[in-house]
Amino acid sequence: MKRIAIGLQYDGQAWQGYQKQESGLTVQNKLEQALQSFATVPLATTCAGRTDAGVHASEQVVHFDTELTRLPHSWVRGINAFLPPSICVRWAKELEGDPGVDDFFHARFSARARTYHYVLYNHSTRSPLLHGRAGFYHWPLDVERMQEAAQALVGTHDFSTFRAAQCQAKSPVKLMHEVQVRRHGDLIVFTLKASAFLHHMVRNVVGSLVYIGQGREEPGWMAELLASKNRSLAAPTFMPDGLYLAKIDYDEKWGLPLETTSGLPWF
Amino acid sequence: MKRIAIGLQYDGQAWQGYQKQESGLTVQNKLEQALQSFATVPLATTCAGRTDAGVHASEQVVHFDTELTRLPHSWVRGINAFLPPSICVRWAKELEGDPGVDDFFHARFSARARTYHYVLYNHSTRSPLLHGRAGFYHWPLDVERMQEAAQALVGTHDFSTFRAAQCQAKSPVKLMHEVQVRRHGDLIVFTLKASAFLHHMVRNVVGSLVYIGQGREEPGWMAELLASKNRSLAAPTFMPDGLYLAKIDYDEKWGLPLETTSGLPWF
Repeated sequence: MKRIAIGLQYDGQAWQGYQKQESGLTVQNKLEQALQSFATVPLATTCAGRTDAGVHASEQVVHFDTELTRLPHSWVRGINAFLPPSICVRWAKELEGDPGVDDFFHARFSARARTYHYVLYNHSTRSPLLHGRAGFYHWPLDVERMQEAAQALVGTHDFSTFRAAQCQAKSPVKLMHEVQVRRHGDLIVFTLKASAFLHHMVRNVVGSLVYIGQGREEPGWMAELLASKNRSLAAPTFMPDGLYLAKIDYDEKWGLPLETTSGLPWF
Repeated sequence: MKRIAIGLQYDGQAWQGYQKQESGLTVQNKLEQALQSFATVPLATTCAGRTDAGVHASEQVVHFDTELTRLPHSWVRGINAFLPPSICVRWAKELEGDPGVDDFFHARFSARARTYHYVLYNHSTRSPLLHGRAGFYHWPLDVERMQEAAQALVGTHDFSTFRAAQCQAKSPVKLMHEVQVRRHGDLIVFTLKASAFLHHMVRNVVGSLVYIGQGREEPGWMAELLASKNRSLAAPTFMPDGLYLAKIDYDEKWGLPLETTSGLPWF
């Protein structure tokens, strides 16, 4: 038995999230259908991090086990031949060693950190060229204020304030490695890197940072919110359109041919 | 009677081009329907430059004449209320003076130059995040070679080599002000500014530049092609997905509140 890891990119607009559902209208459903069409046998898949409806991925990592022997580019082209234009396998890698042993590569459990980008279009008028691909906010936002406020999130914290009610994580305590808020013209990109994320965590953090960027709250509000562990004090969840699962960090020993760009195709 | 100019942005993927058709599935059909819904009377529109099916605009300019008096932001919000997410009015301006006089502002005839961008995703694997929004070419391309070759197009030339058979322009002679080929990571942006363009001209030029960028032809081939005035010697027409009508130049005296960015929302 061999374990194959693949890098998956998708536009989440058309899909009811990553995780398989009876409707069949999810990224995982489409991936497993394509995999079965190419491999001619059903193959179960495991991903690094599930994404919600409307959320995109520039690099989701998925693994599956198989008896088949194929070159990496055959897996890429073979699966892609059966995928719709909104989903694409970008690379494949056969992991060396025995999937049966402890501590073998696992898309989810071997992941050391996840990076998400939230892309926000900050302009007085919406843009059809970014519809479904970016959040939208029409009042001016002060990026420096948001960047300052966001630093309160760095470190190990109980993130209950930014956790959705339906979150299934065992613990609300996560290690936030880095938060960056940067402007690229009319786009503001929020980049969050953490050990793991709670359900809706990025979208909830962005909602509250936008309150600060607009001037409705002071930068110090972010630390207060975090300490309160009270979801009802924070701002509403931001729309999914601008959210991208951008990078999963793994030990270099696995030799994954991960993407080397920012995770957004435009910068 | 007043003449109103508007700036229009659209994602061309869903539409059968700009120009009105019986099908109703064009940008102009949707704009005139929205205009009628807001103004409660039919209003005929004239655009700066028609775009083909699948081609986008970051700034198309359109004018119409009306007896109605509305503030510019009322035109913007009022028309947008009836437009689908893939089309948006970005600004409106009531032109001062009498539309009946000679040399009054006209979206098409007052335009001094048009700028198009062609966005090409140059990567070994397609990207779902750019599907319908960029052309795709999977072999490496040498941007400097393409930039060098493209300079042969600058100046006043007969562009018959790059003209589609169905082109309705009176003359194939146009003044090319500028051609730039630039790389932004995995994206290559071709920017062409000319007095006017023939049908399929940008997509035909890009196709031939790609032959040069790939090494299949030498940079000097572009000048030979241009001199030949023979469409059949040039490369095939490139896909519409990456083409954006980005800017229309007008005399400053009209005081149009034109967009100040590159014309692409990402840079």
